[in-house]
Amino acid sequence: MTSRSSQYSDEDRITKMGPGVEFDFIRSLLDSSKGLEHKVLLGPGDDAAVMHLDHPLIVTTDLTVEDIHFRRSWVSLEEVGFRAVMTAASDLAAMAANPVGVLVSLAIDSDRIDTELSELGVGISNAILDLKTNLVGGDLTASPGPTIINVTVLGETLNPIRRTGAQVGDELWVTGVLGGSAGAVRAWASGINPSPVLREVFARPIARIREAQWITEYGDIHAMIDLSDGLVGDAQHLAAASGVLINIEKDLVPVHPDLHDDDAYEIALLGGEDYELCIVSSPGSLVPLVDDFHKHFEVPLTHIGNVIEGEGIYVKGLDDLDGAEDIYSFDHFISRNSKC
Amino acid sequence: MTSRSSQYSDEDRITKMGPGVEFDFIRSLLDSSKGLEHKVLLGPGDDAAVMHLDHPLIVTTDLTVEDIHFRRSWVSLEEVGFRAVMTAASDLAAMAANPVGVLVSLAIDSDRIDTELSELGVGISNAILDLKTNLVGGDLTASPGPTIINVTVLGETLNPIRRTGAQVGDELWVTGVLGGSAGAVRAWASGINPSPVLREVFARPIARIREAQWITEYGDIHAMIDLSDGLVGDAQHLAAASGVLINIEKDLVPVHPDLHDDDAYEIALLGGEDYELCIVSSPGSLVPLVDDFHKHFEVPLTHIGNVIEGEGIYVKGLDDLDGAEDIYSFDHFISRNSKC
Repeated sequence: MTSRSSQYSDEDRITKMGPGVEFDFIRSLLDSSKGLEHKVLLGPGDDAAVMHLDHPLIVTTDLTVEDIHFRRSWVSLEEVGFRAVMTAASDLAAMAANPVGVLVSLAIDSDRIDTELSELGVGISNAILDLKTNLVGGDLTASPGPTIINVTVLGETLNPIRRTGAQVGDELWVTGVLGGSAGAVRAWASGINPSPVLREVFARPIARIREAQWITEYGDIHAMIDLSDGLVGDAQHLAAASGVLINIEKDLVPVHPDLHDDDAYEIALLGGEDYELCIVSSPGSLVPLVDDFHKHFEVPLTHIGNVIEGEGIYVKGLDDLDGAEDIYSFDHFISRNSKC
Repeated sequence: MTSRSSQYSDEDRITKMGPGVEFDFIRSLLDSSKGLEHKVLLGPGDDAAVMHLDHPLIVTTDLTVEDIHFRRSWVSLEEVGFRAVMTAASDLAAMAANPVGVLVSLAIDSDRIDTELSELGVGISNAILDLKTNLVGGDLTASPGPTIINVTVLGETLNPIRRTGAQVGDELWVTGVLGGSAGAVRAWASGINPSPVLREVFARPIARIREAQWITEYGDIHAMIDLSDGLVGDAQHLAAASGVLINIEKDLVPVHPDLHDDDAYEIALLGGEDYELCIVSSPGSLVPLVDDFHKHFEVPLTHIGNVIEGEGIYVKGLDDLDGAEDIYSFDHFISRNSKC
């Protein structure tokens, strides 16, 4: 991980960045992190990090760009940094993997480098500490404008849970309550401040790493995905990958209690970025775990539908939804990102 | 690797991106890649990739931002994509690691998504094919302006070569000829076009993956770094990490033959982004390999200095250099990036 020269050697706005110095700040915030550090044979400071893994590597990368994924008027940069790491780690949760390392690339307008790096750094390191993982590498460069954060998360697991394993007769479950994040965005988009609770759902998402591992340890899990596109969108990904039809019972969907409008169900079904888990289990496998799950993790585990023969998604009770006609054309709600 | 919704659900410029579709294009360009694909247990398309490694994981990440690392008037987007992957992989070469997977995050102004993704994609996939490795993941999102590419490269090796192993009495060697990339940048910065040869050095760098593996197989290598900051800057990193003084003999430095100006040596010593290898070997270990190396790889392997007691860098013959006073304050040439 060497430094590369910028091509703008004569531009003052870039010269504030010295090699390694700024990332030292983030690393210093992580001194208390002892999470799985035995897996890091060589951390930041050389050309690349060296890691020892006991199981197959699970890896994902996630790009967050100012004015695309967040607005400064909505969240603090500390929250932006925290959120970028957590939402990337959520993809590992969806595979029931354990994060063992994080690499963070940052581009910041160098006129604002001092304050912004320190705010982003606090959020990034708090997320890494919460995940009990390690910062193993990074890159810091100037930006011509927008603040940019790319997070790569490395994890491992012996048994990754894929999207492809849903079988006819299986049950569909979700963790937590849905729609909070989209509710906050809708409030901001309408020019009002969301309730502090809804704001928190957007600003400080939690990757369900421990929940995913617990549930795959005690339950019989066939497929899993994290809710980034929204329940209907992500269930559609599961259905397509598994070649089945997923039936969601609208009335069973756990709507965030702070959503009070007529379209609360629509937001819970279609709103993205809840980062809860959507789980396909064998019939009856999760029922005995519901109380223990709630006790352990303080969020509900809810049976919301079933896997049947066919393809795609069916939402039972859909006709009651305000704006139901949008359900079948929800492209404008989802997937302005494309991951592979 | 799920999609995340953008917060700008009502903005037309984002709606052109569907889930997974665009990255399918890059993947389609890689159909002929059969490099180490047995290591990819699960490729793009699920929440994360799953890989099997035989040796410790080597990992590095690298962010390329338009108008910071490249200008559109200098290079094509195909070259930008190729260069972003190759320069990231160069860090693996410096550890003598073998690349086993690449993750690419892209942000593109969605008004230009169709043409730009296809140009970037050709360059990205050509680099991945040249490296005989695999695209295992990625993220595609809208950009509010600049084109942004983050590349994470995964590799493995049983014996990573660090920066810390230089010992008193060791020899300093470099692959290739130096200064070509900085020569091209200097031409552009002066408003003239560089020679096609110099332009190629900047636009199509080659990560010395095979060279690094060959040389560590046959030579006794104590430390290594890739030349991204420039010879003096990177040798300084080696000296600092190893706690030694590195003496470079100016007259031995292989200057790029297309550099004809009086300051050719200065450019070769201080100019960044050559992506050649700077190698510290035990005394006499590389001498018998010089001819074979040249035959195999069609670039020279040159002894340019020695490791002695002390700390820092000394360039013998420095007083002859035009602009020698800059040597000791070369900060404006290097390290507008900070990697860790």
